Amino acid sequence: MSRLYLDWNASAPLRPEARAAMVAAMDVTGNASAVHAEGRAVRALIERARAQLAAALGGEGADIVFTSGATEAAALACAGRGLQCAGIEHDAVAAWCRVDVPVDAKGRVNVAEPAISALQLANSETGIVQDLPEGLAVCDMTQAFGKLPVAFNWAGCDMALASAHKLGGPAGVGALILRRGLDVAAQIKGGGQEMGRRAGTENGIGIAGFAAAAEAAARDLVDGVWEQVAEIRNILEKALEAACPGIICLGKGAARLPNTVCLITPGWKGESQVMAMDLAGFAVSAGSACSSGKVTASRVLSAMGMDARAAGSALRVSLGPGVTREDVLRFAEAFGQARKRALARLGPGDAHPATA
Amino acid sequence: MSRLYLDWNASAPLRPEARAAMVAAMDVTGNASAVHAEGRAVRALIERARAQLAAALGGEGADIVFTSGATEAAALACAGRGLQCAGIEHDAVAAWCRVDVPVDAKGRVNVAEPAISALQLANSETGIVQDLPEGLAVCDMTQAFGKLPVAFNWAGCDMALASAHKLGGPAGVGALILRRGLDVAAQIKGGGQEMGRRAGTENGIGIAGFAAAAEAAARDLVDGVWEQVAEIRNILEKALEAACPGIICLGKGAARLPNTVCLITPGWKGESQVMAMDLAGFAVSAGSACSSGKVTASRVLSAMGMDARAAGSALRVSLGPGVTREDVLRFAEAFGQARKRALARLGPGDAHPATA
Repeated sequence: MSRLYLDWNASAPLRPEARAAMVAAMDVTGNASAVHAEGRAVRALIERARAQLAAALGGEGADIVFTSGATEAAALACAGRGLQCAGIEHDAVAAWCRVDVPVDAKGRVNVAEPAISALQLANSETGIVQDLPEGLAVCDMTQAFGKLPVAFNWAGCDMALASAHKLGGPAGVGALILRRGLDVAAQIKGGGQEMGRRAGTENGIGIAGFAAAAEAAARDLVDGVWEQVAEIRNILEKALEAACPGIICLGKGAARLPNTVCLITPGWKGESQVMAMDLAGFAVSAGSACSSGKVTASRVLSAMGMDARAAGSALRVSLGPGVTREDVLRFAEAFGQARKRALARLGPGDAHPATA
Repeated sequence: MSRLYLDWNASAPLRPEARAAMVAAMDVTGNASAVHAEGRAVRALIERARAQLAAALGGEGADIVFTSGATEAAALACAGRGLQCAGIEHDAVAAWCRVDVPVDAKGRVNVAEPAISALQLANSETGIVQDLPEGLAVCDMTQAFGKLPVAFNWAGCDMALASAHKLGGPAGVGALILRRGLDVAAQIKGGGQEMGRRAGTENGIGIAGFAAAAEAAARDLVDGVWEQVAEIRNILEKALEAACPGIICLGKGAARLPNTVCLITPGWKGESQVMAMDLAGFAVSAGSACSSGKVTASRVLSAMGMDARAAGSALRVSLGPGVTREDVLRFAEAFGQARKRALARLGPGDAHPATA
């Protein structure tokens, strides 16, 4: 039985369109800052990618600064600006903010001062989607872009963050999107690239892959591909609830990403679940994947008021296009069996689910 | 007649070994921070690349932090440390330093306080190589690495900078190399990657390409490939001197890179030369390629005491393996003709070479 990858929110498989664009870009030799024909060809490739990306995220006319990822884009957007955010934001944003914006038990953030706040469009662990207040300083679109229709020009925010590898582009490329007329000071200096906002020879191959992936992702959205993913997600949740009495699928009924299941099995550690499912042939994750190795209680779920025992038991199953009904039923069955074994081993004191 | 690329110091063509490694890495789906088999496969790919790179630059046992390029590595190594450097350093280093270390007319830097200084191993515009003083804080090896034998562990410096695309890897990847036991504070925060020194999901595809290119470059050095390049370079300089009486080939006789010719034709603007040669089918550059579009008098040559008229006339011709005797003779002939036309047009007052 082949392995099943259900960790799309950590990193999506590279799309064929991205691969083709990257391989094509490998033949374009030159430095985009050079004025000769070879340099201009690299420049053209990057500017074409910028236009493609702008179109894919509904940001025509906005400024796009290519970065080495959403994490760098977050630093560029947030550092030194005295912003505030809620505890459910990604570390890459929270690292630069005062973390004191309230979030309720349903994962909804109440932003009182949009002009000095950062807010994600969708959460990577729970999939829960926020209503963006008008005039928001920074919107982290990393997890939503490519899974939900996104239009930067209608989002009402000054800046947004995006990542390539969450939507089928390569890791190591991202973007900061700015409303025209705004500016940011370069943090990586020593060259005039990206209109003076980000020095360093451009990652042409990665940028080409990002844009091609974004374009393909936008087309998928129009084609209803993610509605099918949502149907498979619903089948998975039903199967899990049937197989595991008392399990909690977080965020049901809330606006959320079409692909993300956040399972709570109080007492059974998320990391143990990940390892059990890995042995059974499934790639899933506990909490956010972005901090190397360390797996603790989910900061996101703690911020939503969940106790440590429940927050430490979260498992994220994130799907993508091509994952089938048979796939998720196979996962639900394997998860049910692993859970049964774990409960038997751990005993009711350690591991009984909330209502089992 | 096909075009001839002679701008290897700006960016080298992607090596087949790098391309193969990148294409192979495209099939490895996952986030290196994930604990499941897919994540571990990406992690293994990155750690294998780290070991490959360490071996290629003689840095076994040193710490290697992968970055989005040498420019980011320079910021990580230099920002906020009160370092000093000479005016011939790359902008990416000079941006963070007090630029007051003396440099002589032959391009040699006299470092009085190595512990608080940054110094390049080789200059990108002139190719001139420095003797590294023991105990140097930061060595920019970007332009030398891959063209000269480099051994970080014997260089006597605390930190070094390297770039992939200067040696046949992809643009958008670089590294900071640190002597074991030293540390740097992360500038891009919000994740534990690269031992806490650089947050953000790793550019696995680019890193794989970097390491494969570095390994191939190290092998080329052992095989004497760059000695052949130096021979072709010498043929080019002789042909240029024969075709253009009074022309100056900078750095002859000095220790310098095997591939770099820095031509001075006082009065004929470097940017005009680049455009004339571009039309004739040759990609070369005026000064450093790293600042987008703007071409002014070379800061490097000005720092060496050259007057603005001469420094504004510099043309860099940088070769690589595979460039032939016939190629460079063709270039010398075309350059001689273009120069003759330019001199006739500009008149002796504007454009006569130093001794013509």
